[in-house]
Amino acid sequence: MSNPPPLAGGPQGPEALRPLLDTVLDALHDGAIARGGPLPAGGPHTVTTRLRDVIGDPLPHHGTGPDTALRTLVQALAEGAADPADPLCAAHLHCPPLALAAAADLAASALNPSMDSWDQAPAASALETLVTDALAHEVYGDTGHPGQPGRPGQSGRPGQSARPGQSARPGPPGHPQALVTTGGTEANQLALLLARESHASEGPLQLITGDGAHHSLPRAAWLLGLPDPVTVPAPTGTLDPAALDEALTDLPGPKLVAATAGTTDAGLIDPLPEIADVCEHHGARLHIDASYGAGLLFSPTRRTQLTGLDRAATVTLDLHKLGWQPVAAGLLAVRNPADLTPLTHHADYLNADDDTEAGLPDLLGRSLRTTRRPDILKIAVTLKALGRTGLGALVDQVCDQAQEFAATLHAHPGFDLYDTPTLSTVLFRPHGAPDERIAHIRRTLLTQGRAVLGRARMDGRLWLKATLLNPHTQPGDLAQLLKLVEGNTAR
Amino acid sequence: MSNPPPLAGGPQGPEALRPLLDTVLDALHDGAIARGGPLPAGGPHTVTTRLRDVIGDPLPHHGTGPDTALRTLVQALAEGAADPADPLCAAHLHCPPLALAAAADLAASALNPSMDSWDQAPAASALETLVTDALAHEVYGDTGHPGQPGRPGQSGRPGQSARPGQSARPGPPGHPQALVTTGGTEANQLALLLARESHASEGPLQLITGDGAHHSLPRAAWLLGLPDPVTVPAPTGTLDPAALDEALTDLPGPKLVAATAGTTDAGLIDPLPEIADVCEHHGARLHIDASYGAGLLFSPTRRTQLTGLDRAATVTLDLHKLGWQPVAAGLLAVRNPADLTPLTHHADYLNADDDTEAGLPDLLGRSLRTTRRPDILKIAVTLKALGRTGLGALVDQVCDQAQEFAATLHAHPGFDLYDTPTLSTVLFRPHGAPDERIAHIRRTLLTQGRAVLGRARMDGRLWLKATLLNPHTQPGDLAQLLKLVEGNTAR
Repeated sequence: MSNPPPLAGGPQGPEALRPLLDTVLDALHDGAIARGGPLPAGGPHTVTTRLRDVIGDPLPHHGTGPDTALRTLVQALAEGAADPADPLCAAHLHCPPLALAAAADLAASALNPSMDSWDQAPAASALETLVTDALAHEVYGDTGHPGQPGRPGQSGRPGQSARPGQSARPGPPGHPQALVTTGGTEANQLALLLARESHASEGPLQLITGDGAHHSLPRAAWLLGLPDPVTVPAPTGTLDPAALDEALTDLPGPKLVAATAGTTDAGLIDPLPEIADVCEHHGARLHIDASYGAGLLFSPTRRTQLTGLDRAATVTLDLHKLGWQPVAAGLLAVRNPADLTPLTHHADYLNADDDTEAGLPDLLGRSLRTTRRPDILKIAVTLKALGRTGLGALVDQVCDQAQEFAATLHAHPGFDLYDTPTLSTVLFRPHGAPDERIAHIRRTLLTQGRAVLGRARMDGRLWLKATLLNPHTQPGDLAQLLKLVEGNTAR
Repeated sequence: MSNPPPLAGGPQGPEALRPLLDTVLDALHDGAIARGGPLPAGGPHTVTTRLRDVIGDPLPHHGTGPDTALRTLVQALAEGAADPADPLCAAHLHCPPLALAAAADLAASALNPSMDSWDQAPAASALETLVTDALAHEVYGDTGHPGQPGRPGQSGRPGQSARPGQSARPGPPGHPQALVTTGGTEANQLALLLARESHASEGPLQLITGDGAHHSLPRAAWLLGLPDPVTVPAPTGTLDPAALDEALTDLPGPKLVAATAGTTDAGLIDPLPEIADVCEHHGARLHIDASYGAGLLFSPTRRTQLTGLDRAATVTLDLHKLGWQPVAAGLLAVRNPADLTPLTHHADYLNADDDTEAGLPDLLGRSLRTTRRPDILKIAVTLKALGRTGLGALVDQVCDQAQEFAATLHAHPGFDLYDTPTLSTVLFRPHGAPDERIAHIRRTLLTQGRAVLGRARMDGRLWLKATLLNPHTQPGDLAQLLKLVEGNTAR
């Protein structure tokens, strides 16, 4: 082979990338125009058939060359996307990424650092440590510093309110840290694993969750070979401290309670301080899945909704939700860094003892993955570009949208509103429609390519779910969404 | 907030991205020039201090705006990178990604599909199914089709040699499939999990590996709550079938043997057909970690080195090694799709029964992750752009480089060569140098910023490791590498 295709890295990489990126941008644009809405019309069969026709043989003997492959496949992907940048794509915790975060992510792809050894990621390793420390501090404040109590309202940053629930008790030695994960699911797995190992000598760990907790928690218990979780009924959607207290009473062995700050179905926040009290009383370890809710930390007015967060041993964050990152951007904040010891891992080719003694640091023990993309880069660029103020404004924007949308629904005789939103999720249903109709409306809008709405069962009934994560959404967009639902209600 | 920052998606996304990408490309270029070599000089303390100075407060109250944040952080990352696009960065299975793959990956960031439900990734779901089926077919051929035996040499694709080790026995019903993973580590975890679940009723699964197997295998056993693995000594670097036979004899309970096609230390391939025979004899399930070696499938002349691969129940592939993808691009090929049943997963908000009955497909059961980036896009673009021929030529290129480099070392009086390379890993050492000197040479070259070499212990001695994964590397580059090593040998 005389002329291998150009690489993305090195001094020549940028010039090789430039025309290819032009092709990608053109294809993204043309695909979005061809789609003409939040998702492609026609439903799964139509989309799959079209894609199959475009791609032909996915592994041909001779290739088409870069330009054709990029143009056709990227355009097909864009034309067949459910694009969260469209205001009517509002089903899931599936955010539209900021352009600056997507641009930063390109540099991760081009340089391809791998976080499992220093000599594959010198600067990226340093960056990850700095930024994860800052995010862990955002969750826990200074509670972790040895002998130093939390300092409510003394963060020294101008205009910032007190850290939520920063308690006066001294934290464990060492400062809180955070692990980078592929999302809330991996963060929840790690939280369970760290709890399992912390209590390994005391018998099998028992997970206790409310029944509104994310499905990744029981799945993680299964993965890790732990007993089936105890599920506390949560008819109102949040974990009731009294019911939790009852469930924990006389429950033998080591216990991990997983509470939620931002449920998937309704965006509800469990009563964190009361749950923390119950856990403390029963000697149960507390994990809080704040995949959705952690974004409130950036909002000066809303961060008090997270009071009690810092009382958890571990907290799941997910900046591909209220953080506007491309997937993946998950984190697990860990209050006591000693809890990370079980992840310590040695592989002679990556972190031989004599290399470590000679001063080569490594992040191999910060993940269960080995090769690992520097997802921290796009997060770092976003935090630096927007600051806490900019991110907080985005959070407030979508939460305010949700309040306004809920008010509209409340005032509308044709719709029932489930409740005033806690975060940015609004559950509603056309008044009097049976559950089957609700499910059908959602599927019809999907098949028409006109809206992507979610669904949730609350109070024994099925509701349409709008998860508002797009700061560019306007009231008119949501009015249009209601019209689309109304148009499909009577049929 | 009157004016939120622009999004990457939608019809306006490409225009918002364009100037930001220009900034990123300029910063990548300037960072590479400032670095001036394969990695930054000065060692960890210098790199960390510089980065800390550049970033300042990682989470400031007010942001700097996108342009400054992108320019400074991307340039700092590039300046502080160990860039695999530099021929002297050759330590690890850390490939330089192709520009076309990095460009394709941008589209994944911009559109942000998430693979856990159809309504977050309509076309991406179809694409993943098509491409993973093609890759599973590349591993297993048609052996999986019901009642249809493998067809050696009858693939119908022009110029392609027989699939490696395509045996005549009929496969299980259904066609082989592949799961997308974050890398070889997650693929190995999944292989162990699927084996654990397949044999759940028979008692705890016992993993058996050679001691050259990847560290992720014993770590996965720990994660999954399985007994400690039985490790078969492998003094020659590969798993000896006779030693395996002995280890399996009288070993009770369900057994999973993990063999390796491309060891991390020396790029060796276990004797796969003989190992498969031993496994069959003992009723042990076989997994093959071909993270490194699977790339040989694309080479018409080298794919016979993988004979026996299709006899494994599961095979790990990793296209961020011999596939020139940005991280992550792992896969687990699964011969019998019924083995995937334990991953079946329901979450009402993602795949409610009535939605499934109404024809909405979903890939939730294709991963342990929930939110999941479409890493298949860059893979699909690469396969389509280069074809099997183009990828095979790249594989041959780096394997040929390794052969030539080994020949040079063999002829050089100042160096010892460990062995003729099987893949593209070359182990060597300055003749007569003690182990401590070998380790010191590697660290000195790192600190000087002049070369990134790996290390491996074989035959009881420490060797320098060059893992050649850059198809642009020239013989002169490797001659320079030897000069650098020589220059540090005598001191």
